[in-house]
Amino acid sequence: MNLPLGFRYSALYAGIRKAKKNDLALIAADAPAAGAAVFTTNRVAAAPVVLGRAHLAVSDGQVRAVLINAGNANCATRTGERVALTTAKAAAKALRCPVEQVIPSSTGVIGMELDPKLITAALPQLVAGLSAGRFDDAAEAIMTTDLVKKTAFAEGAGFRVAGMTKGSGMIHPNMATTLGFVMTDAVVEPAALRAALKRVVETSYNRLSVDGDMSTNDTLLVMASGASGVKPPRAALEKALEQVCQSLAKQIARDGEGARKLIEIVVTGTRTNAEAARIGRAIANSPLVKTAIAGADANWGRILCAAGYAGVEFDPRQVDIRLQGVRVCRQGLAAAFDESAMKKKLGEADVRIILSIAGAGQGQATFWTCDLTEGYIEINGSYRT
Amino acid sequence: MNLPLGFRYSALYAGIRKAKKNDLALIAADAPAAGAAVFTTNRVAAAPVVLGRAHLAVSDGQVRAVLINAGNANCATRTGERVALTTAKAAAKALRCPVEQVIPSSTGVIGMELDPKLITAALPQLVAGLSAGRFDDAAEAIMTTDLVKKTAFAEGAGFRVAGMTKGSGMIHPNMATTLGFVMTDAVVEPAALRAALKRVVETSYNRLSVDGDMSTNDTLLVMASGASGVKPPRAALEKALEQVCQSLAKQIARDGEGARKLIEIVVTGTRTNAEAARIGRAIANSPLVKTAIAGADANWGRILCAAGYAGVEFDPRQVDIRLQGVRVCRQGLAAAFDESAMKKKLGEADVRIILSIAGAGQGQATFWTCDLTEGYIEINGSYRT
Repeated sequence: MNLPLGFRYSALYAGIRKAKKNDLALIAADAPAAGAAVFTTNRVAAAPVVLGRAHLAVSDGQVRAVLINAGNANCATRTGERVALTTAKAAAKALRCPVEQVIPSSTGVIGMELDPKLITAALPQLVAGLSAGRFDDAAEAIMTTDLVKKTAFAEGAGFRVAGMTKGSGMIHPNMATTLGFVMTDAVVEPAALRAALKRVVETSYNRLSVDGDMSTNDTLLVMASGASGVKPPRAALEKALEQVCQSLAKQIARDGEGARKLIEIVVTGTRTNAEAARIGRAIANSPLVKTAIAGADANWGRILCAAGYAGVEFDPRQVDIRLQGVRVCRQGLAAAFDESAMKKKLGEADVRIILSIAGAGQGQATFWTCDLTEGYIEINGSYRT
Repeated sequence: MNLPLGFRYSALYAGIRKAKKNDLALIAADAPAAGAAVFTTNRVAAAPVVLGRAHLAVSDGQVRAVLINAGNANCATRTGERVALTTAKAAAKALRCPVEQVIPSSTGVIGMELDPKLITAALPQLVAGLSAGRFDDAAEAIMTTDLVKKTAFAEGAGFRVAGMTKGSGMIHPNMATTLGFVMTDAVVEPAALRAALKRVVETSYNRLSVDGDMSTNDTLLVMASGASGVKPPRAALEKALEQVCQSLAKQIARDGEGARKLIEIVVTGTRTNAEAARIGRAIANSPLVKTAIAGADANWGRILCAAGYAGVEFDPRQVDIRLQGVRVCRQGLAAAFDESAMKKKLGEADVRIILSIAGAGQGQATFWTCDLTEGYIEINGSYRT
């Protein structure tokens, strides 16, 4: 896959996390790129989120680099703000750009002091290592409990989009989710990029739930270098961005902590898309639905039940539910199906739930989540210690 | 403990569930009692909920009996309404009371037809078995995945309150939760009983979360026989009712599916009690907090993070968090504490989280939940099959 022009990547191990695995990444544009981001809406926002938001405002959407560390969220610490600023300044100096063109981003444990010297000392080597081909190195360095690296690519007429993301827990569909960095070489003004991101995040990262927890550090940043020289029509740009962001969101769900299955939930026939999304979110967040899918149990009653508390008015007698293409609930009632065949189908790595409501409207939404297994408990019972 | 006067109880095995364990219970007042109830707000309400709501309206709060079955929710079935009405009618006939004075109540699997003959055939024996002393038999017959029977008792000046409840999963603090039946021999008018129940449910069942799922069958019914001849002051009645309902709610949390610990969450210092409850609910519903407690991990960052997305405005720098009485977070930052001593304290069966906000107000709320363990996944992965 061809990478977007105008970006270079680097990664190394700076000693931030205990495991000797790269934990510091830098994504740098050759010249200031247009930048747009969505950040967590959590009241408790990490220092880099606060600073990143401010930098984007001050620079009016001009971004030269993102400096990302894994292993420490730089959140709820005494020195958080200073650490974010110090490290951003050091990166700006090394790249010879204004500090407001550097976006810091952190992920990891909350409430543990982050030593800025680990980062500033590593910066010369990090910058020296910048290379257009080290995209995957950066994608690997931002991982925490992720089991797999998550990248996605798309191409439009004359321009390219590439994205990397991390996250497998503390993921909730309300605003940006987890860390995601998307680069394109399309020519786009910052305002147009912000508008495109706002629309695309709705049908990608905001349709994703692993456990209903929303992090203090969630960030999704898009940068457009313009290096292709091509200014695509709005629809073409959004299509390529959506393709990348949906792929990244699905990869996060599939790699959900302890997950064995990607669950895609399609809701149709509500009055509005927003209503369909609310029902999809309720189903995606239901531990009862997610454990049933883990156990390959066609417990459609739990799906109907979750839809019922989504806060959307509908007539249960107008609801059909399909699992893996097989109708298990017809007009709100049990439909006959082959239990043992269904058990086998639900053992697959991709599970699809379709809930359709007849007669209400044309609203529809697709949501992604994962099954809930013993593994989630194991991972999260001892993350900090 | 002295039981309230004026009630009799019965239970037997009617063959509704596979396991040969009593699955049908009857609670009967000697004469029509004042009755008040809160039911699920789920859009998908089970047939007995719909009929119970209608009966209370028609009878103007006069209740003679509750007929409860476990093993089948009588929800999302072709014949649900007819089954609820047929069985209520049969009970009314056997007890020689108007049908609207009988409240049917069901719990169990959704979407499976319930054979009314199993219940009507058992009714003569069930009614013949009514006895003032068989309170515990009824409390046992309504259990499903519950590991322990849940009952609570209180006494006021000259009157008594006794309650039984069931539930250990699909429990969410929004309206009545699970099945609960509370009897008192106080003299209370139906309207006053409704008002008392409305207040008491707010600080008991509505402060309880096991997994954030809200059932189609949730019912909390209070009956006042008046057999004591004592008409207590409003405050005394509410105090006794609250004592019983809080005890029942806590018992449900402690017996949460797979739970090893009861978690009590106390939030103080918000502008209003409602704000404190919202923060408490966010913490109680967070799988990350609940798995950390399961692993005896003092991960206070997750607690602060969950508070942050509760939708309440507060300054994180004004937040203190205490675990088992030990301050682990001070003014939003890590406080020094003995990790190994804390690990030991978090291994206890009762875990207390106190989140206090300085300077905002006098709002406060207490919430109950349980830890999230591998056991929850095991129980719910194969409930139906």
